[in-house]
Amino acid sequence: MSWGIIGTWRMALEGIVEAEKLLKDGQTSIDAIELAVKMVEDHPEYRSVGYGGLPNQDCEVELDAAFMDGDTLSIGAVGSIKDFKNPISIARKLMDEKYNIFLVGQGAEKYAHTMGFERVNMLTDYSKKEWEKKKSQVKLDKLKAYDGHDTVGVVGLDKNGKIVAATSTSGLFMKRPGRIGDSPLSGSGFYADSEIGAASATGVGEDIMKGCISYEIVRLMEEGLHPQDAAEKAVNKLNKKLISKRGKAKDISVVCMNNKGQWGVATNISKFSFVVATETEKPTVYIASFNEGKTTYVKATQEWIDTHTE
Amino acid sequence: MSWGIIGTWRMALEGIVEAEKLLKDGQTSIDAIELAVKMVEDHPEYRSVGYGGLPNQDCEVELDAAFMDGDTLSIGAVGSIKDFKNPISIARKLMDEKYNIFLVGQGAEKYAHTMGFERVNMLTDYSKKEWEKKKSQVKLDKLKAYDGHDTVGVVGLDKNGKIVAATSTSGLFMKRPGRIGDSPLSGSGFYADSEIGAASATGVGEDIMKGCISYEIVRLMEEGLHPQDAAEKAVNKLNKKLISKRGKAKDISVVCMNNKGQWGVATNISKFSFVVATETEKPTVYIASFNEGKTTYVKATQEWIDTHTE
Repeated sequence: MSWGIIGTWRMALEGIVEAEKLLKDGQTSIDAIELAVKMVEDHPEYRSVGYGGLPNQDCEVELDAAFMDGDTLSIGAVGSIKDFKNPISIARKLMDEKYNIFLVGQGAEKYAHTMGFERVNMLTDYSKKEWEKKKSQVKLDKLKAYDGHDTVGVVGLDKNGKIVAATSTSGLFMKRPGRIGDSPLSGSGFYADSEIGAASATGVGEDIMKGCISYEIVRLMEEGLHPQDAAEKAVNKLNKKLISKRGKAKDISVVCMNNKGQWGVATNISKFSFVVATETEKPTVYIASFNEGKTTYVKATQEWIDTHTE
Repeated sequence: MSWGIIGTWRMALEGIVEAEKLLKDGQTSIDAIELAVKMVEDHPEYRSVGYGGLPNQDCEVELDAAFMDGDTLSIGAVGSIKDFKNPISIARKLMDEKYNIFLVGQGAEKYAHTMGFERVNMLTDYSKKEWEKKKSQVKLDKLKAYDGHDTVGVVGLDKNGKIVAATSTSGLFMKRPGRIGDSPLSGSGFYADSEIGAASATGVGEDIMKGCISYEIVRLMEEGLHPQDAAEKAVNKLNKKLISKRGKAKDISVVCMNNKGQWGVATNISKFSFVVATETEKPTVYIASFNEGKTTYVKATQEWIDTHTE
């Protein structure tokens, strides 16, 4: 059977290279995607996910993550959790629970501690300096969340037909403490159904959650649309709706894959990078862009890959 | 123009009686629905919402609430917030924010405190005793969340065509600290679009969030379905999908209304009460039940209303 994996942003590359080996070897998409996301979380230079993530207004790195198993629709999610090394692994563990599958704040930390997950101070010197710099630039009462929004969202299909979706992020730089974006919200940041496919989103969570875009993409694939058409249709519709009702749509980008390993991508911004690997395609970085209502993409050059993380 | 309001469970009655007056008088659905939900939150005998809500494993009353304005798609939500009198009013306030619209835990409390919201110890003697009783019945490590799940979800349309949705709940009795259900999750617990309609759900959040049911109902109404057909189609589909993939579907009940003031309700349980008031119908309590794939409902008797809260 077909297999494949697709993830948001160039930063997913190293993880997808390793995850691809597991999928090729016949291992589960759960193991493969967890590995891919962990590698992004562990990377200190990826500033929007896990260790080295940019902090909130109080200079704390608060993390959101989620996992969904398309065979069972089981979901696990954490929000606003501090100082655990791999939020994605906690989200995976929560998929085993029947109740209490989405935990936030101190409750999430208590659970993770009880389950033996590794604690790490997730604030790096670099991130602390960025925070100090930003804070010195603006008065405290003028501080507002920065539009950075680089969730790693990964969708994968294994040889047994299991489709999963996973997300991990430190959320908006300079967000308010306790702020939750779309990443841990089922249907908005992610959705997976092995009979159809899965999708994941990145961008400004406040706008993404206004359209339940990951659910909508999977639904459109269920109607028979190719993942590329489903992704574009869903993003274009939400983009137009936001402009019509609010005057403006903030950044929205999505990746998706169906149960045949076909994939799709859409964005409403000028540069959205993503990484794909399938049975027929080695791990490849693409750059998508939005022009006149249409998403197009090209392969990234090695030079671009070497000099960009997003 | 038409107006109307529909809310989950009999406990919504007193609030809907007052909200109806505002809607009839031409006031906004935001003011009317906030009042309706506040009255449920303030009622000490309604055990699953606000003051007097049943506590978590640590005997703390943790509250979730959300508000959505269908004109702008603005959302405000709080999760896992303790000891504020009216979570729904905090959610309403968060609708004004461009970023940081969904806050949880201590961050949500910090925001609410800064904004001057009233603090109250939300644990009543009754709820504390219920907690002690439950705790004495089972060993601590065997404690599990109770299937109670009575979110108040209210949807309303005003004379200017503004449709809103709102939810408030203390979540599952004996939940883990930090547990979030579907109530504050856009598309799952609630969704509103004034050009179409709005929906809200109650039941076991862990299952409701597997289907983004409120978004799906609004989407079906957009396709032209009557609210009753949209509600039933969405609930039946999710119910079947959960049974097929998980062997069992937990409790799911929904209410919805379109932009003409027509309403719908669906459930997969044997007894789900709800309250409706429209231009042509005084506040009325109904009891819905699920039989052979179909939701039917009858008016509740005064005796039933006098002796039930759920």
